[in-house]
Amino acid sequence: MSSIYHGQLTVSIFGQSHAPAIGVTVDGIPAGETVDLEELQAFLARRAPGTGAWSTTRKEGDKPEVLSGLVQGKTCGAPLAAVIRNTNTRSGDYENLKDIPRPGHADYTAQVKYGGFQDVAGGGHFSGRLTAPLCIAGGICKQLLARRGIFVGAHIAAIAGIPDATFDPVGLEQSALQAPGEKIFPVIDDEAGERMQAAIAEAKAQLDSVGGVIECAVVGLPAGLGDPMLDGMENRIARLTFAIPAVKGVEFGAGFAVANLRGSQNNDPFYMDGDRVRTRTNHSGGILGGITNGMPLVFRAAVKPTPSIGQVQDSVSLSRKENTKLEIKGRHDPCIVPRAVPCVEAAAAIAVYDALLEQEKRREQP
Amino acid sequence: MSSIYHGQLTVSIFGQSHAPAIGVTVDGIPAGETVDLEELQAFLARRAPGTGAWSTTRKEGDKPEVLSGLVQGKTCGAPLAAVIRNTNTRSGDYENLKDIPRPGHADYTAQVKYGGFQDVAGGGHFSGRLTAPLCIAGGICKQLLARRGIFVGAHIAAIAGIPDATFDPVGLEQSALQAPGEKIFPVIDDEAGERMQAAIAEAKAQLDSVGGVIECAVVGLPAGLGDPMLDGMENRIARLTFAIPAVKGVEFGAGFAVANLRGSQNNDPFYMDGDRVRTRTNHSGGILGGITNGMPLVFRAAVKPTPSIGQVQDSVSLSRKENTKLEIKGRHDPCIVPRAVPCVEAAAAIAVYDALLEQEKRREQP
Amino acid sequence: MSSIYHGQLTVSIFGQSHAPAIGVTVDGIPAGETVDLEELQAFLARRAPGTGAWSTTRKEGDKPEVLSGLVQGKTCGAPLAAVIRNTNTRSGDYENLKDIPRPGHADYTAQVKYGGFQDVAGGGHFSGRLTAPLCIAGGICKQLLARRGIFVGAHIAAIAGIPDATFDPVGLEQSALQAPGEKIFPVIDDEAGERMQAAIAEAKAQLDSVGGVIECAVVGLPAGLGDPMLDGMENRIARLTFAIPAVKGVEFGAGFAVANLRGSQNNDPFYMDGDRVRTRTNHSGGILGGITNGMPLVFRAAVKPTPSIGQVQDSVSLSRKENTKLEIKGRHDPCIVPRAVPCVEAAAAIAVYDALLEQEKRREQP
Amino acid sequence: MSSIYHGQLTVSIFGQSHAPAIGVTVDGIPAGETVDLEELQAFLARRAPGTGAWSTTRKEGDKPEVLSGLVQGKTCGAPLAAVIRNTNTRSGDYENLKDIPRPGHADYTAQVKYGGFQDVAGGGHFSGRLTAPLCIAGGICKQLLARRGIFVGAHIAAIAGIPDATFDPVGLEQSALQAPGEKIFPVIDDEAGERMQAAIAEAKAQLDSVGGVIECAVVGLPAGLGDPMLDGMENRIARLTFAIPAVKGVEFGAGFAVANLRGSQNNDPFYMDGDRVRTRTNHSGGILGGITNGMPLVFRAAVKPTPSIGQVQDSVSLSRKENTKLEIKGRHDPCIVPRAVPCVEAAAAIAVYDALLEQEKRREQP
Repeated sequence: MSSIYHGQLTVSIFGQSHAPAIGVTVDGIPAGETVDLEELQAFLARRAPGTGAWSTTRKEGDKPEVLSGLVQGKTCGAPLAAVIRNTNTRSGDYENLKDIPRPGHADYTAQVKYGGFQDVAGGGHFSGRLTAPLCIAGGICKQLLARRGIFVGAHIAAIAGIPDATFDPVGLEQSALQAPGEKIFPVIDDEAGERMQAAIAEAKAQLDSVGGVIECAVVGLPAGLGDPMLDGMENRIARLTFAIPAVKGVEFGAGFAVANLRGSQNNDPFYMDGDRVRTRTNHSGGILGGITNGMPLVFRAAVKPTPSIGQVQDSVSLSRKENTKLEIKGRHDPCIVPRAVPCVEAAAAIAVYDALLEQEKRREQP
Repeated sequence: MSSIYHGQLTVSIFGQSHAPAIGVTVDGIPAGETVDLEELQAFLARRAPGTGAWSTTRKEGDKPEVLSGLVQGKTCGAPLAAVIRNTNTRSGDYENLKDIPRPGHADYTAQVKYGGFQDVAGGGHFSGRLTAPLCIAGGICKQLLARRGIFVGAHIAAIAGIPDATFDPVGLEQSALQAPGEKIFPVIDDEAGERMQAAIAEAKAQLDSVGGVIECAVVGLPAGLGDPMLDGMENRIARLTFAIPAVKGVEFGAGFAVANLRGSQNNDPFYMDGDRVRTRTNHSGGILGGITNGMPLVFRAAVKPTPSIGQVQDSVSLSRKENTKLEIKGRHDPCIVPRAVPCVEAAAAIAVYDALLEQEKRREQP
Repeated sequence: MSSIYHGQLTVSIFGQSHAPAIGVTVDGIPAGETVDLEELQAFLARRAPGTGAWSTTRKEGDKPEVLSGLVQGKTCGAPLAAVIRNTNTRSGDYENLKDIPRPGHADYTAQVKYGGFQDVAGGGHFSGRLTAPLCIAGGICKQLLARRGIFVGAHIAAIAGIPDATFDPVGLEQSALQAPGEKIFPVIDDEAGERMQAAIAEAKAQLDSVGGVIECAVVGLPAGLGDPMLDGMENRIARLTFAIPAVKGVEFGAGFAVANLRGSQNNDPFYMDGDRVRTRTNHSGGILGGITNGMPLVFRAAVKPTPSIGQVQDSVSLSRKENTKLEIKGRHDPCIVPRAVPCVEAAAAIAVYDALLEQEKRREQP
Repeated sequence: MSSIYHGQLTVSIFGQSHAPAIGVTVDGIPAGETVDLEELQAFLARRAPGTGAWSTTRKEGDKPEVLSGLVQGKTCGAPLAAVIRNTNTRSGDYENLKDIPRPGHADYTAQVKYGGFQDVAGGGHFSGRLTAPLCIAGGICKQLLARRGIFVGAHIAAIAGIPDATFDPVGLEQSALQAPGEKIFPVIDDEAGERMQAAIAEAKAQLDSVGGVIECAVVGLPAGLGDPMLDGMENRIARLTFAIPAVKGVEFGAGFAVANLRGSQNNDPFYMDGDRVRTRTNHSGGILGGITNGMPLVFRAAVKPTPSIGQVQDSVSLSRKENTKLEIKGRHDPCIVPRAVPCVEAAAAIAVYDALLEQEKRREQP
């Protein structure tokens, strides 16, 4: 247990920030599916650092090498394994993180859990860098979904309290869904995006960081995907989205706003749109009883401000058992929300493709 | 896949609202643990209907029968299985739910997924009644945790926009944690509770329903529970909490509010409290990198308003493929938030006990 | 982990010999499948005791009650749960089994594993009685397979060294496969069966017991079921067959005889039978690379002699840490091989149906 | 599902014979365990080809690279991933294997299952080469067990009908257990080994191959490892051993010979050896009710003769749907039994270490 999603697909993520490599195995993709590695590379580039002022200038060069599972660009039924080499290994001195944990990071909890044997370099297995293999798996699932007419997209819904426009939960089309992802700063409303970037720059100047919210949607979904109770679409997506280290909340459709709605407002009335059943509103986020209803699937994830900030912070020395101060060196993203956008898409794509594989099985029954 | 949580514990829920029984198997509890069935019954009573004006007067008599796994009140190492008989089976006529789905319910999505073979009576496997077996499993885990000094509690954080007081995320003690659960209407601030009950009564009079938020906390936790990435405490708790049918959002610590905080505000500074490492604030909800840090674990779940309302609603006839009206008969809770409080505790208890079992294994290594 | 098979189906067995009930949950059967409870009852009767001189006269009345998952005789997509009440609970005094373990039984190992908290009555969770829920799950799978033209059958291949005839591994037809199962003493060659029964009677008269071998086959299988490495048909069937307490060996096709064959003998040459690919011999038992090749799937299981015998045996007192004698009272089957025949069929049926569900998923891909 | 063992450890094997790499991830090893890579390399060398006349002279150079999970030679709690580069990729022309399947190989079954998209080069994911990653995982487990005083060893029990001596199932000591593994041709009785090698040479001269049996044992085991029913030591070991492509049978203790024994012979009487409970015989192979009893765990695996032989064989053309002849070119092991010996050890080591991790958890309970 730890870095494995086990459904129709088994997605198993490995690696540490400064180990020789990070990577992922994906077991369960049917044979004969095309994987476009250039398209995958373009998707990974959206997560890579150094693309904007809100990000570190460190260059990681997240170029995946597929070790197995593909023959001439098509899946062969065997597990797909892909790795990204870490070029930047063991360069710094991280040993003091075992003694003086950084607030907001996993240094202290990993020290307790692993008794000092954890890999502290660059955050080890807890590094945001581990979202790159998540994006490899998710990027592949995204491609496989797109070929079935199912599209996954996301945008920054808010940063530092500045809201973007929202996806139209009822009438969302593929083009509107994918438009933000084609921008360097993935928002719907570019003017709001500029204000967000200004807020990031201001925080950065003050050696601080800001958080935000990401909204993600899936369109083109058939009704009937997902399972009751523990394998509903909410369960699957939440479980995968919380794999992104900074996520602290996940909500579907109206989400926490349901607390202020009455049933007569929150219920989405059904109507016939030609032969198709649709709902007039979409407070459910396209999910009823854990199962897709064919409307856009819509959810949001809260992303905390980068815990690595340049200001002096209070911490403790675990060895001396006394209070102390800590100053984190190096360059860090003042806001990771933009880079987390494709990660949230990846989480959604894995969950949806997994549910699709399961449903295709059931539907085939005589 | 569907109604199974598979970790150190395997919790497998079965049953439909009007089947002969609902129940649960729990595999993986070590032998020799005491299970107090009276205490379990008292816990289940908190979920049972008919205890207040906000709830239906239907009497379910949720009395679990333990079929296996216990010998003279102690676990024997074999899977524990428990069932609750449904006394109220197949009484009504539910066949029209296959044709005219209720808004906000799983009628339509189940019809698509199961091709008309689903059990529609009383919502079948999608009924809120299936949270009773979840509470059996969770109630047992809660007992086992309490004997290790770990306590789980929850309260209504808001109903119809009316907020309760909140748990103190830093200094929460067992007594304050458990106080709401001893009340019929589980709030911290009884005056707020009265206003909530008035809001429920008002909605009920208008044949409507209201939603809310539940706050849950766990205290007495050791640091070091949970795993990185896909089996962090957030992943586990979210997956289990979304098993409660009406939940549409889950957030930890500051949750969605992190979007408005700076890193310097959101980071929780460490300090020494005698020999113990603590944090001065608790925006993380007691979880860093998916792993407990020893502070109170705090999360919230958004609960939608009961979709069953007495008002005439818009729906469709699936057979005739045309719009129609629907009026739901019978009595339904105008607000399920109070009854969902122990269900959220159950979800948390299963997740925490499962992580504890895993950690006990690792800690024992030489 | 312990009594759970987790594939496309999750089969979860619970109960102890003298607990209120034994039972099973089966999660993952698609909705709309017919389950014939009379046919299931007839299958279970083959496992029940008291049908012949080789068996105890104790009457168990293995009548399963389906608690959930069926609506009007068809699966509804929700987990199927069924239980068998134990009528004969806690009647005897079994506490001394914790002190003086029976040779060949799990008394000693359970005592060590569960620290004395195990349920000793009647063998607890280790009782052969737990194969009844296995037969419920397997009997249902057998029905679902038969409706797809896939048939599972088994016979006694040997008892006390007396061999039965064998299934024709190349030309086996449904009628020959199922003929033994329709007999009270399930052999191909009734004359051999009579000699076996005489050997059993002789052992019984001497307060002893005898073991044997069961041969099982599956015909009508499509090629292409199963997976490489850890989920091949051999892995699945072996894992499920070893769930039957007395089984000590499993072999496929030529099995251990491959050790004496050359490649030129053991390889099964392919040939065209009209449009169909077949093999002239079937040393592989119908499995190549873990995957079915469309020929009859054939395997054998070795079943040890009943460990409960009437003779005085050497054992120890765990409390006094000294050697002692043990005499087992009560009536016990002098040979469990006949009753184990349907259990082996059940194990095979679960494995094959699980692989079929998986394959149906993959085949449906565009 | 396919190449994953999912218990306390998750072992996930990937790669194809001629893909860029083969490899394995192992999730669940506690932090702080030492992994000796030189010792691992020496273990892998026992499986490597080219060490004797019975093996191909092809040099594979199975040198694993650990990509993650180790820090300065110790596990860090994150998944351990290791790969072996394939130097010999896509060199030949294997496309005709899709049309004319080799008898005894998975060519035909893979063609059906994967619809022609499987990787045929060198057998793809079905190649015996995939046992190298199994040996990486198993070799590491073997080390971790040895440090707890638990030792795994195996030897050739028979080749071409020529038997080796057997392990003493009652008094087996570490030195006798490990002696065969230190030899190039791992037998107990070197004279028998010479006759086996002569039989291999003779088969080779006749463009043929021979099969055999491997006996494996584990000593130093505590009583109490393993679980009832589906996760007993037999179930685990069988499932893992059948992952070795050529294995067609697995038996424990007396194995298939139980069919000829009476209960009074097969039951192993308990006696006190000082403070320790032991049995006078060991027909159970050290396992009762799926759980170790502290005696040597003993099992055997049947290994079929190499299906690749130089003789002309009958096969079919799948495209032309007609019978044809096939001649396999290249050099192949006339007997893979010697190289399979460490693979069987690896399977046993994974199963035992997994059960040990689980037991350590349970034992720690208060």
